Amino acid sequence: MTVRRPDPGRRDRIVDACLDVVAEVGVAGASHRTIAAAAGVPLGSMTYHFTGMRELLREAFGRFAAAAAEGFERRMAAARDVEEAKRAVAEVITAEPPGGPRDLVLTHELYTLAARDPAFRDLTNAWMAASRRALERHFDPLTARLLDAVIEGMAMHRALDVEPHDPAAAIAAVERVTARSV
Amino acid sequence: MTVRRPDPGRRDRIVDACLDVVAEVGVAGASHRTIAAAAGVPLGSMTYHFTGMRELLREAFGRFAAAAAEGFERRMAAARDVEEAKRAVAEVITAEPPGGPRDLVLTHELYTLAARDPAFRDLTNAWMAASRRALERHFDPLTARLLDAVIEGMAMHRALDVEPHDPAAAIAAVERVTARSV
Repeated sequence: MTVRRPDPGRRDRIVDACLDVVAEVGVAGASHRTIAAAAGVPLGSMTYHFTGMRELLREAFGRFAAAAAEGFERRMAAARDVEEAKRAVAEVITAEPPGGPRDLVLTHELYTLAARDPAFRDLTNAWMAASRRALERHFDPLTARLLDAVIEGMAMHRALDVEPHDPAAAIAAVERVTARSV
Repeated sequence: MTVRRPDPGRRDRIVDACLDVVAEVGVAGASHRTIAAAAGVPLGSMTYHFTGMRELLREAFGRFAAAAAEGFERRMAAARDVEEAKRAVAEVITAEPPGGPRDLVLTHELYTLAARDPAFRDLTNAWMAASRRALERHFDPLTARLLDAVIEGMAMHRALDVEPHDPAAAIAAVERVTARSV
């Protein structure tokens, strides 16, 4: 008699392994086979737990974006006033991403996926909305939207450049965008 | 007797076909074989003209970024004063990219490549430097750097969202960043 042993951690491991494989070889290089091997699960587990690669990618990138958004929300919640919030925003722009180069690659993999296929844009939409909500603890909605875009653009330019960026530029950007003179 | 017929357009066609294939299936899906087929050249042409996929990708993305930078430079050169330049920047943020969804995908493919492999960051560095030079026709270097980041962040957020973005936000961003109150 075969006793079915559910492995509640297996589905989770597959989702995490999906992110590892995508970080390594990209969305285009990720297959049921490579992800099952990385997760240490039999190939059949993949179709048992997921209807296909799209569902798995959605769940993996949803988890990735939610973790990133939570980290940002914690930073904004820790700021006790608007000046601390402004400093925290400038630090997010100039600091390495918390997950290092892996986070940078996964962010760009998600953006590329969403650029190619609008069906994935609810994930980028949810991430942006969460970032704006975190910023709205300290800033009005328009300023929050502009700061979110400034963080994105400046952090990305810094990460994809070969020259060091002066942290003073990040501080100037935050000061100007939050000055509300206009 | 075999007369060698050099085909000076062939190398060019391969570079263009590389961008077409990358736009369609991504860097990870691009191979000598798929690109040769798209260019309508024999497979042997690929190794005749390029030492490998890296050289071809560098040339293809270099051409793509240079064309995008030239288009932006033309817009900035056409602005007769700082107010026209500010309006042009806001329009770049809110308009579809000139090459449509293909440009969006290729931009993200390049960023993903550069995120994964620092050896490609001289391409993103050159593109950013060209954008800043174009902006410096009208703005001081720090403002140009901040505007370039704002264009990047806001245009990207707009393109990857499922909700429409109010063009007034782009105008507000440009006004605040150029106000130089700070």
